[in-house]
Parts: sequence; C-alpha cells; structure tokens
Amino acid sequence: MSFSTVFPAAKWLSTYNKSLFSGDLIAGIITAILLIPQAMAYSALAGLPPQIGLYASIAAPIMYALFGSSRTLAVGPVAVASLMVAYALGSIAEQGTASYLEAAILLSFMVGICFIGIAILRLGVLTEFLSHPVMAGFTSAAAIMIAFSQLTPFAGFDEKLLFADLLSIGSLISIPGRINDLTLVLGIVCLCGLYLIRKHFAKFLEKLPISTSLATGIAKTGPLIVLVFSSLAIWIFDMNSTYDVAVIGHIPAGLPELSVSSFNWSLVQELAPSAILITIVSFIESVAIAKVLASKRRERLNITQEAWGLGFANIGSGFTGASPVCGGFSRSVVNFSAGANTQLAAIITALIIGATLTFFTPLFYNVPKTVLAAIILIAILELVDLKGFLKNLRYDRADGVAEATTFLCVLFFGIETGLLAGIGISLTLHFWRSSRPHIAIVGQVGDSEHFRNVKRHKVKTYPHLLAIRIDESLFFANAGYLETYILNEVANKPELSDILLICSAVNAIDASALHTLEQLKSELDDSSVALHFAEIKGPVMDRLQATSLFSSQNPPQVFLSTHQAFKEISAKGNPLLNDPEWSI
Amino acid sequence: MSFSTVFPAAKWLSTYNKSLFSGDLIAGIITAILLIPQAMAYSALAGLPPQIGLYASIAAPIMYALFGSSRTLAVGPVAVASLMVAYALGSIAEQGTASYLEAAILLSFMVGICFIGIAILRLGVLTEFLSHPVMAGFTSAAAIMIAFSQLTPFAGFDEKLLFADLLSIGSLISIPGRINDLTLVLGIVCLCGLYLIRKHFAKFLEKLPISTSLATGIAKTGPLIVLVFSSLAIWIFDMNSTYDVAVIGHIPAGLPELSVSSFNWSLVQELAPSAILITIVSFIESVAIAKVLASKRRERLNITQEAWGLGFANIGSGFTGASPVCGGFSRSVVNFSAGANTQLAAIITALIIGATLTFFTPLFYNVPKTVLAAIILIAILELVDLKGFLKNLRYDRADGVAEATTFLCVLFFGIETGLLAGIGISLTLHFWRSSRPHIAIVGQVGDSEHFRNVKRHKVKTYPHLLAIRIDESLFFANAGYLETYILNEVANKPELSDILLICSAVNAIDASALHTLEQLKSELDDSSVALHFAEIKGPVMDRLQATSLFSSQNPPQVFLSTHQAFKEISAKGNPLLNDPEWSI
Repeated sequence: MSFSTVFPAAKWLSTYNKSLFSGDLIAGIITAILLIPQAMAYSALAGLPPQIGLYASIAAPIMYALFGSSRTLAVGPVAVASLMVAYALGSIAEQGTASYLEAAILLSFMVGICFIGIAILRLGVLTEFLSHPVMAGFTSAAAIMIAFSQLTPFAGFDEKLLFADLLSIGSLISIPGRINDLTLVLGIVCLCGLYLIRKHFAKFLEKLPISTSLATGIAKTGPLIVLVFSSLAIWIFDMNSTYDVAVIGHIPAGLPELSVSSFNWSLVQELAPSAILITIVSFIESVAIAKVLASKRRERLNITQEAWGLGFANIGSGFTGASPVCGGFSRSVVNFSAGANTQLAAIITALIIGATLTFFTPLFYNVPKTVLAAIILIAILELVDLKGFLKNLRYDRADGVAEATTFLCVLFFGIETGLLAGIGISLTLHFWRSSRPHIAIVGQVGDSEHFRNVKRHKVKTYPHLLAIRIDESLFFANAGYLETYILNEVANKPELSDILLICSAVNAIDASALHTLEQLKSELDDSSVALHFAEIKGPVMDRLQATSLFSSQNPPQVFLSTHQAFKEISAKGNPLLNDPEWSI
Repeated sequence: MSFSTVFPAAKWLSTYNKSLFSGDLIAGIITAILLIPQAMAYSALAGLPPQIGLYASIAAPIMYALFGSSRTLAVGPVAVASLMVAYALGSIAEQGTASYLEAAILLSFMVGICFIGIAILRLGVLTEFLSHPVMAGFTSAAAIMIAFSQLTPFAGFDEKLLFADLLSIGSLISIPGRINDLTLVLGIVCLCGLYLIRKHFAKFLEKLPISTSLATGIAKTGPLIVLVFSSLAIWIFDMNSTYDVAVIGHIPAGLPELSVSSFNWSLVQELAPSAILITIVSFIESVAIAKVLASKRRERLNITQEAWGLGFANIGSGFTGASPVCGGFSRSVVNFSAGANTQLAAIITALIIGATLTFFTPLFYNVPKTVLAAIILIAILELVDLKGFLKNLRYDRADGVAEATTFLCVLFFGIETGLLAGIGISLTLHFWRSSRPHIAIVGQVGDSEHFRNVKRHKVKTYPHLLAIRIDESLFFANAGYLETYILNEVANKPELSDILLICSAVNAIDASALHTLEQLKSELDDSSVALHFAEIKGPVMDRLQATSLFSSQNPPQVFLSTHQAFKEISAKGNPLLNDPEWSI
C-alpha cells in the first residue's frame, strides 16, 4: 500500500504548481457563492438551523479534499440526503430541539462509519444495488416530496402544510387563509428571478468577452443575486416586523466548535437502518457525479477511495456539529466548469464559508425563508424526469414498470420503504433476467469448423446428437434452467443419445451448478444419454478435474474443440445426417 | 390451453392400460406401508395428533395425482416442512389445543394459495432463490433441530427437553433423572433395528429370487416391521400402564370430515411470512425430487404444473383438516423403485390409508411414541451432510462460507430467520458474481479474421485502438463495471483514440445499461476517444436503433464484424503496430 493510497491528496499536492492556482481560486470563489444559499436551504430542508448547513461545508469538503479520489467533486449538504435526514429524525425528536440536532450529528458519524465500512470491505458493488430506472423513480418521488415540504416556507404557512390537509375538503378550503400573502408574492418573484437568470443570464454573458466556462460559472450565482435583492427588500420595507414575512434571523457568529456527540446506544440502533440507506443513496449519487467529472479529464476514479473520502467527510461533519454530506451535482459541475484543477478549490470554498461564518452572519438576518424555498424548488423540480421515464418504458417494459413502482412506493409508503422496495425490485429483476441465460442449439456450417445457432443459420445437425452452447457462466440461478432445458429436449427427442455442452462462454461454474451438472449426468445416464463437454476453459477445467463428476468411473468426455467433438460423436452414431445442403 | 394443461391426469388416464396396473398396485401398497408410520411421526414433529398426518395422506396425494405433472412423486407430510409448521405455530397457540390444529389447517390453505399464486404468476424461478450450498446448510441445520426435538419422545422426558436445559449445569445434571429408562432402551433398540434393516435387509433380499426393485421396496418396510414388534412388546409386557412408556393411544376412527377453517384475518397476516417460506422450501424440495424421477424415465417436468399440483394438494389437505404437504424424498424413491408407472399408485396408497383409518386405528393404540422418534431420527440424520459441505468448501470458498453461515444462522437465530439469511446470502453472492462479468481485451490472430484475448494468445494490437469483448448481457449490475473498466483503460493509456466494444455475447441491454452506454459515450467524447461497436446482435440492434445513443448527431459507428472494424479503425489511426511476430 503506497502513501498515495492512504493519503491520495499527496498526488496532487506533490505536483502542485502556480499554473493550477488561478483556476482553483476562481472555482473556489464561484462555488462558495453558489454554496452559501444552497447550504442554508438544504439545512432548512433537513429541519436544522441554517448555520448547520454552513458548518457542514467546512470540515467535510476539506476532509474529502485530503482523502477522496475525485479532484473536482464538491462535497456538502445535498437535497435528497437532507430529506432523508428529516425523514429519519422525524420520529425521534421535534424539529428545532437540541436532541434533534444531536441526532443529526450522530447520523453524520454513523454515515461516516458506514462509508468507512464500505471502504474496508470493498463494497463498491453497493453502488450497483439500484438499477438506473429504480434510482430515477426514487429521485423523482423524493423531489416531489421535497417540493411539497417547501410549500410551507414558500407561502409562509402559519403551520406546516401536511399532505393530510389536501385530503379533507374542510382543511383544503382553509388553506388560502393560512398563507402569508406577501411571503408568497416574494417567493414567486424570487422563483421567476431564479428561472430567468438561469435561462437567460448565461446566454447574455456569453456575448461578453469572457471565457465560456467563467460565464457558465457566473450564471450560477443566480441564487446569491436573488438572495441579496430579496434581503434588501425585506430590510428596506421592514417586511419582517410589519408584514410578518419569516426571515432567517440571528445566526450565531463564528466557526463551529469541535464536538463529540454523546453516545446513545439505543439511538444508534434506531438510526442504523436510516444511516445505511442514506449511505447507499449518497454513495450512488456521489459516484455518479465523480465518474462524469473524472472522465472529462481522463482521470481514474477509485470507488473504494471515494468511500474513504466520503467517510472522513461525514465524520468531519459530525465533529463540527453538522449533518450528513455527500457530493452535490450542480455544485460539482459549477466547480468543474469554473476551472477547478484540484481539491484546493474545495479548500478555498471552505475557507470562504469559514470567513463568512466568522464575519458576515449579521448580513443573513434579513434573508427571507421563502427565498431559500424558491432556491430548493428551482433546483429540485428538474429531478422529476417524466421524459426519462417514458424513454425507459418504451425501451424496456420491465424497467419502466420498476421505475413507476418505486416512484409510487416512495410517495405512498414513505422514502425508506420506497427505497427498500426499489432495491428489492432491482435485485428481483436482475435475478429473473440472469437466471434465463441464452442457450443455443448449434450445428456445423457446411464442412467448416464453424458452429452456429440452428435458428439463424443453415447448419448440419445429427438426430442423435444435441450440441448446446450456453452463453453465460453457470451458477445456481441459471444451472437449473439449463438442466430443465436439456431434460426437456431429451424427453422430446427419443432418438437422442449424445449431448454436447459447449462451454466457450462459461467463465466459472459454482458449487450449485457443479451439483446440477453431476445430477444432470446421472439423470442422463438413467436415460442412456451420454454427456460430453467441449471448449471448457483452462481455469474452469482445473477445478472440475478434482470433482466427483470427472473422477467417477464413467466421466463425461471432454473435447478441446466443438469440431473435434462433432467428428468423433457423429462417427460413432447414427449415420443419418440432417444436412440442409442435401435436403434443398 | 389444452385440456391436458388444465387437467394433466388426462394424459395418463387416457392411455392407461392393464400392463401398467400391476406396477402401480405393488408400488401403492409398499408406499402405504412406509407412509403410515412416517405420516404419524411427522405429524408428531409438527406438534399435531398422529391421525392428522394420515389425513394429510389421503386428499392431498389424490389432488396431486390429478393436477401435478410428475407421474411418481409421492406427496404428503415431510420432515422439514413439519418442523417449519411447528415453528410457525409455536408463537400462536399451545401444542395440542384446538386453536393450534386450526392454525395448522389454515396454514395448509395458505400454502396452497401461495402455490397457486406461483402457478398463475409463473414464478417457477422461486425454486432457484436458494443456491445449492445454502439449501444444504439450511437442511443440515433443520435436521439437527428436528433430531433435538425428537429426543423428548425418544427418551421419554417428563417435560420437553429444551436447548436451554443444556446450557446451565444445574439442569444438565438433572437430565438423566428426567428420562424414562425403559422408553429410552426401547427407542435405542428400535433405532438399531431400523439401522440394521436398512443396512442389511436389502442385501439379504437381493439374494432371494425376486426383482431388485421389489427387494429395495420391501427393504423400506423397516419402519412398519419395527413399529409392529415394538407395539407387540408394549402390549405383551403392558409397558404403558406399568412402566409409563408413552404410546399413541386412542386415534379417532374414520375418514376426516370435510371442513372449512374459520377465517381469521389477523391470524392470516401473522402466518403469512411462514406460509411463504414453507411454500418456497416445499417447492424447492418437491421439484428437486420430481426432476430426478422425471429424468429417469425421460419424462418432461413442467414446473408451473408442479405448482398447480402442490397448490391443490395443500388446499385438499386443508379441506380434510390436515397440515401442509409436499413431495417427500424417500417416499417418492420407494414409490418409483417399487415400480409405480402413474399417479394411480399414489391413489392406491391414499385408499389404503383411508381403509387403515376406517378399520385399523385401534391397532395403533400401543404404538410407542419413541418408535416414531426413532423413525424420524434415522431418516433425518443422513440429511446432515458434512462431506458435501467440505466438498463445496474445497470447490468454491464463497459457496462453502455461504453454507456454513446459513447453517449457523438457522441454529442460532431460528429456522425462519436462518432461511431468510440464506436467501439473502444466495442473492448477494449471485449479485456479486454476475456484476463482475468477464471482459477481455482482444487482438488479431496473425492476419486471420480471428480475434482472441491478449492475455492468452499472441495477437496483433494497435496502441490507439482498444478492442474489448464483454462476455455477458449488459444490465444495471454489470454496466457500471464495464464503464469503470473502460474509463480506467482510457485514463491509463493517453495514446488511446478508439474503443471497439465487441458485443458478440451481449444478448440484451437493459435501460440502465443503455443509460450507462450513453453516459460512457459522452464521457469518451469529452476525452476525445471514439466509441465503436461490433457484432451487435439483430434483436439488440433493433432496440438500440431508436435510442438517443444512435439517433444523436454523432452516433457511434457499428461494424458487422470485428475484422472489418479492425481494418477500418486501424487504417485511420496511428500506423505503429504492436505485432508480436515483429517483436519476437
């Protein structure tokens, strides 16, 4: 294990030079500008005070910068994970209480430990537990849940708007009366502003004589611009005290203090399932983004190293009293397109956020909560991907149904049950698909040494010889299928005396499949049908040699090539050829 | 749907002739002789009165005879399912009470409905949910649990011997005092008798001038012989009243009455998980036996039809007030080797059991319970398969570990948790294995049109062209692996400008894999590497054609053959060849 495996930052630190710095500096600043409002908004989504999101944006990205493998991934609080935190803590404590915050911090530690467990056990395979359609269905439903939860601050509801409120006519007609009109108006103005900036600002900037990547970067500062103007409006028109428009209010100044949450074993047990699910979702999201970024610069992504990086990031978040973090999509793209070369950009972002917390928190006093909701709404609604769903459904019916089922399960049975259902659907679909491997009956092409599928080619076959090619490794989920297939052929073809199993695509045979083959051999013996093998690969044959299948008194014959097998088996058998060239 | 699909018995009924009858008659009688003591013993194991096992041996096999697809499978109560019934009902009612029996009957209905659900939804794939090693580990552990549970009747314990009794020294030393000595002696004598008959009686019979199959059949009558002699001993020496040796006692005479259990929704919910697990285990066991039997006579086994047959058998069992049933191994083998030709043998067995219930129940009064325990012990202990475990461990480490884990989980966490753990282990192992498909980098063999793995053959390659063959269909569990593999190659080889994906073994591409390919394409575009395909199969290409991957402005090039691809791509690229023939 080299030094750079344990401490991957050594790689870019050792080769760092001045030419990289300007890119990192600009990217660091632009990302910070995007991150500050996002961090506060996602913190609110998780049911936590706004400064927690900023705390999570200091130690976490620095830890990731030192231990993660991606050079441009921006780590911090993200939308879906924040929703999952709110969901996990909902049954444990009241939002706004000290025990709610404590549980959130504990959750950071637990997610961190889960990531480190993944790294140690090399469980990178976890990122593949959810098929793409299922993950899309989950994300779409989560986005809708997030959007719904943001209606309360967006419209300034007196009390939290619940889904149940939409179900009874009585509470439905009372909804308009519960809205703070000015808050809603301000929210809508902010939303339109964000939409227009996003849609048209970039195009406008492109016409200016600046680089495209810088223009894209600056266009992402929309949230900050809207935040500044709306805060000014609150301040100038005194909207908070006069019209009761909710604002963030006082944020304690200064950096977070190092803290260790009090250890509570029963709380750990209660939070464990949520921590695991948050880890899986965070891991899938982060790796998906990091993969895209790495390939853009032909860099290598190490999934295990990603788990180390995210693990330390979450533990860092926990120690600084903040909630779980992972790689954020829009933020990472901004960081990358603004020219970040290394993780120094993330460290610069973290330092800016630290400075903000130290000096500028009074400026946030007048930030209206509705603008944070607007920032989330604009970011989240593009996650609802109806077009992608229709595309999946058209391309593969089963995948489309899996996506729709996951979507509905999340909406109706909650985020965790829905996610588990999604994992179950993914695995079942996978199991079902891979347990039906492609099996071809092959015959000889003319007098050549080529053998092809009888269904697609005109080939020579013998009535007493069935040559079968299985296009997959044999293991418990498909061995039985092969056995049934062969036994059915034997039952249907009384003239059959020889079966040749062509193993050119069989890379492994597990213990179940070996058992099935042994049983198949004895079943074929009972039916007086001989079993032969051809083209068994070297490593597979090495292991088979020692088994009772091949050390028995009457072992199956193994041929090196299908051609040789055909020649020898056809010679001993029935001379009647089923030769298409003759029958034409 | 033909008549014989709905009513498969029509097949053998319509062609039935006199020559088949003698075999069926003899097999029916011999199987009945084996079944009577077995049915009572397994009934005791399930915690039910002895006649319930006999009830389960009348309607159930007749229903199976009419609707099942195997011609020789003998259906009735079996050991592992009986243990699972006892386990499922343990927390619901006290053994011996009316509500315990009622729950057992309800369980039969539920198992029957599960089977019919499997048949309707064609979930035959369920029989593959457990890998062979995991099923073996489960069976071994279940056998040990059954054996332990039989120590109570075997040694005539005053109160049920619990596992906890073995853990404290106080209760450990009190164990000998709790034994009924004469019961234990009688049990040991019966056990030895059963063992000797099994071991030597068949050999002795072989010397007589009767057919081997009949001899094997008669040798299986050991349980009845031991049962008769031990009952005589009880009666002659009045062991029951004098020495307190427990006997079966009074069995109500007559056939079971048709009954419909009272419907209790909360009980149904409570029993649902157990019913599903019993169904899976019963299905796997039954199909495994039926497969062996079918192949011996070159018959075709229809798994869906098996599910129909077992479904109606269990519902029949429920209507006649009995517990869940499935195909029994030893019983089916006896039936088969005694010459059964069709399911008429099973109907004859059922009629004999019906006659026994009607006329001979008083004869069972003096059957000692210890002999039933001895019958179970001798049958069950060969299910503990240490040799098979070592074989699996040697052949495939992962399979061995999975088997051991399942075994320990069943023993320490109970039969249902253990079984679920086994299913989980099977699926995870399957997932892990199939998510790492075989990927080969290939090169040209000389100037031929053959392309082989660069690791195994001396082949021609080009530094700017990477030709990759993936030996599996692409879907969500392995597409990411392929993507990472390719991106790593791209990161490691800066001279790379073309990637050729050879899809000769790709039979399908699911929506996730399509998404991964689209992403891979754009990632490679970012790295200025061109992606090409070769040998895409017809049906796969048809579906790909319509996707955005191929309808984009800059679609990947598709070549019909690898040879053509090599020729065209090498022509446009770097002329430097890496030809092994030159470098030698």
